[in-house]
Amino acid sequence: MNIGASLSILLVLSTVHAFQYNQLAQYVDEHQEEYVEALRDWVAVESDSSNVLRRPELHRMMEMVAQKLQQMGGAVESVDVGDQELPDRQTLALPKVVTARFGSDPNKHTLCVYGHVDVQPAKLEDGWATEPFNLTEINGNLYGRGASDNKAPVLAWMHAVEKDNGVLPVDQALPVNVKFIIEGMEETGSNGLEAMILAQKDTFFSDVDYIVVSDCGWLSRRPAITYGTRGNCYFLAEVHGPKQDLHSGVYGGTVIEPMIDLIGILDTLISPSGKILIPGIQEAVAPLSDDEWRMYQDIEFDVDDYKNKIGVSRLMYSNKVDLLAHKWRYPTVSIHGIEGAFSDPGTKTVIPSKVCAKFSIRQVPNMDPTVVEKKVSDHLHSVFSKRQSPNTLKVSMVIGAKPWLADIHHPLFEAGKAAIKRVFSVDPDFIREGGTIPISRTFQDVTGKSIIMLPIGGFDDGLHSQNEKMSRYNYIEGTKLFIAFLNELSQITEAAV
Amino acid sequence: MNIGASLSILLVLSTVHAFQYNQLAQYVDEHQEEYVEALRDWVAVESDSSNVLRRPELHRMMEMVAQKLQQMGGAVESVDVGDQELPDRQTLALPKVVTARFGSDPNKHTLCVYGHVDVQPAKLEDGWATEPFNLTEINGNLYGRGASDNKAPVLAWMHAVEKDNGVLPVDQALPVNVKFIIEGMEETGSNGLEAMILAQKDTFFSDVDYIVVSDCGWLSRRPAITYGTRGNCYFLAEVHGPKQDLHSGVYGGTVIEPMIDLIGILDTLISPSGKILIPGIQEAVAPLSDDEWRMYQDIEFDVDDYKNKIGVSRLMYSNKVDLLAHKWRYPTVSIHGIEGAFSDPGTKTVIPSKVCAKFSIRQVPNMDPTVVEKKVSDHLHSVFSKRQSPNTLKVSMVIGAKPWLADIHHPLFEAGKAAIKRVFSVDPDFIREGGTIPISRTFQDVTGKSIIMLPIGGFDDGLHSQNEKMSRYNYIEGTKLFIAFLNELSQITEAAV
Repeated sequence: MNIGASLSILLVLSTVHAFQYNQLAQYVDEHQEEYVEALRDWVAVESDSSNVLRRPELHRMMEMVAQKLQQMGGAVESVDVGDQELPDRQTLALPKVVTARFGSDPNKHTLCVYGHVDVQPAKLEDGWATEPFNLTEINGNLYGRGASDNKAPVLAWMHAVEKDNGVLPVDQALPVNVKFIIEGMEETGSNGLEAMILAQKDTFFSDVDYIVVSDCGWLSRRPAITYGTRGNCYFLAEVHGPKQDLHSGVYGGTVIEPMIDLIGILDTLISPSGKILIPGIQEAVAPLSDDEWRMYQDIEFDVDDYKNKIGVSRLMYSNKVDLLAHKWRYPTVSIHGIEGAFSDPGTKTVIPSKVCAKFSIRQVPNMDPTVVEKKVSDHLHSVFSKRQSPNTLKVSMVIGAKPWLADIHHPLFEAGKAAIKRVFSVDPDFIREGGTIPISRTFQDVTGKSIIMLPIGGFDDGLHSQNEKMSRYNYIEGTKLFIAFLNELSQITEAAV
Repeated sequence: MNIGASLSILLVLSTVHAFQYNQLAQYVDEHQEEYVEALRDWVAVESDSSNVLRRPELHRMMEMVAQKLQQMGGAVESVDVGDQELPDRQTLALPKVVTARFGSDPNKHTLCVYGHVDVQPAKLEDGWATEPFNLTEINGNLYGRGASDNKAPVLAWMHAVEKDNGVLPVDQALPVNVKFIIEGMEETGSNGLEAMILAQKDTFFSDVDYIVVSDCGWLSRRPAITYGTRGNCYFLAEVHGPKQDLHSGVYGGTVIEPMIDLIGILDTLISPSGKILIPGIQEAVAPLSDDEWRMYQDIEFDVDDYKNKIGVSRLMYSNKVDLLAHKWRYPTVSIHGIEGAFSDPGTKTVIPSKVCAKFSIRQVPNMDPTVVEKKVSDHLHSVFSKRQSPNTLKVSMVIGAKPWLADIHHPLFEAGKAAIKRVFSVDPDFIREGGTIPISRTFQDVTGKSIIMLPIGGFDDGLHSQNEKMSRYNYIEGTKLFIAFLNELSQITEAAV
């Protein structure tokens, strides 16, 4: 320990019960090289959950997480969540879910931090400018796979908890009790997690008051709090015709082709201008309120930046409010592809006998997946029957994930707002996420607790892409934000909740 | 040599110049076990031209062909047609094309027999009842991959030529000069063959009068002669949008999705009732003549059998003439699939950035691929522009194969008809092939010679499918047919041609 660090701890100790943000912030600044080194160690582990060959690395990653939490003084448990089924009937052990507890003072609120330490695949050849598993700092950005999604945020939460670790044990020094639940399968569907949450509903989660998820990013350079995600209804529409694939020369013209039927019904889902044509879908959507409209107006969002990033000459909507609304709070239909048809390079002359379209409809309040399922099925069967085809149509909904929407006036969000104001001296943007983060909905449905999504990732971190990065600024200021947030949380009175 | 065979040869010798069909037929019957054994040896070679790992087998197959033709006394050449380019920039030697000449008597006509000895892939696990590369006879059917397509027909031609091989050299005994051109890449596009034909136009082909192709099958149990094939225009329609694939949750609703544009334009190609909706396509088609209508009426074809074989409850047309006409002499649109979209099992939530549809339009007289290309491109660009999409559309025609249609009153066809009448005691059905057999069109265009397609395969041989077979009956009677056909050919007078 160097003298500077010792001084910092003395400062921290003297302020344990009277929150003095500036001293804590200074402590974080002084330890930032250690924090970057910790991130470097984690990024070096190729914890790709989608690649079964990397499973040993993923197990090692979970052990590192458990070890770190133990060193911090937590009560740590590595929970076995069973096996993953592989296509060839083999099974593979899932990475353990690591839980930890810091403090169990009944007079303090209890926050549960969720995060994941598995990553998307990455190879230098994909177009990375640096080795993806060797954290590399360039102009204040820390490049590496998983840096922003979600290793740095998980570490920032750990730093926020351990920063008090001087003379008083960390669990006594913390203004709230903190629990961690860290998984290693988020990128491939959080296998085993929902069952584990359900099983620990009345044990691990029984004393949890709030859950925080920091697995997303800001919308711009302005800090943000995420209060909603869209859900998703994912459909398969399968048209089945001849009993086997046919040669298009030999049979073309004599059979009614399943692929042509399928194209015909898919073309009735959405108009070129983005209007959903399935009766009863658009009608269920909660209208945009004036408050919401005004909030969207104030959000920092550059439409041209967004357009350029995607690389298109025109978006579906040209003004900010329409664009944000259709990104976050209106449903849309995406057609992902067709299974069973010819999809390889080359020129095969086949009439596919069985083709299965995959499309999904993003869900927003007040849509109900059960109702959506029926409307879509009724609509497709209706347009299909008009074709008078001898082929058969089967429609099934294989995912029915509800949207999540929180009340931004809840004290939890007020706490987040106050913490951001303290660290960044600005009010946050309250934003939503167009994608589905099922874990937030699962936490809400299973535990009944209040959830907040408090991102520290930048808007341009390149999650799932080449050259993913976390800026040193966001990592370090994010750690301060979490410290400030813990303090704000401790101020919430029971009555307010 | 057994005594029966010696007697047969004596009989054959005595009839060299006066064609006595019955004795020759008896000779064939007596040698049928040898013929089946020859087929067994050939089927045992896994000459799958689509599998680069089987290339040594394919080379061996071509050597066996050359050896056999040499043993028959032919002037054989194995022609190097260069290398095949593989996707990873590697190259692989193409199988040699084997040519052979039997006789060069300027007073005789010269027939060129085309055939191929490569096969489609086959594995027992695909659902074969017997080992696909072990010829197995069950109830008079010889099961094995390549038995009907095209090894038995090629062997039958060889038997038809070698059957005269007694005391007189085979080339003197033959009523016409016979040439062979046997390739090993037919199943994957006849790589190298067209260039080879072009190169030998004024050498190998200079004295050829007629070309016969026996690489197809009958339509029913009645023997048939094929006088036409449809051509094919194969199109790629590519819609290009964002610069990379996007997450449908994060971006859905804000971008105009290429896949939805593509579905929209594909849906304007053909109606549910099979009417081509592209202006100017249907209009070019030669009208169905009364003669043709009557001929179709007389053709042996069981619509219910056809329907049951395909496994559908209803076909595009319910009466025989309409069905045959749309199988052979009307164009149709088939949509084969989409490259670039999600086509795997599972539920990926992607907005594909670049999607490429593959569809083809079968060509019949008097369609012109150049005109078809323009009409399709104009039509698609027109409907695409109405969508006012910011995405870009590129339409390209990657195959433009013309149809082939012969005059069934040509002496070559009269010879075929007479030969069938002699062997089977019935008049043949004159049929067409809905598929494209580019080699017939290539032979016609490059050499300017007359082509006939004289099939001996059964209507239910299961080409390209599991349990492919050649019946012993078709194989042996087919050999007799070729013998009779050679004799009929020799009767054609120059004036008639």
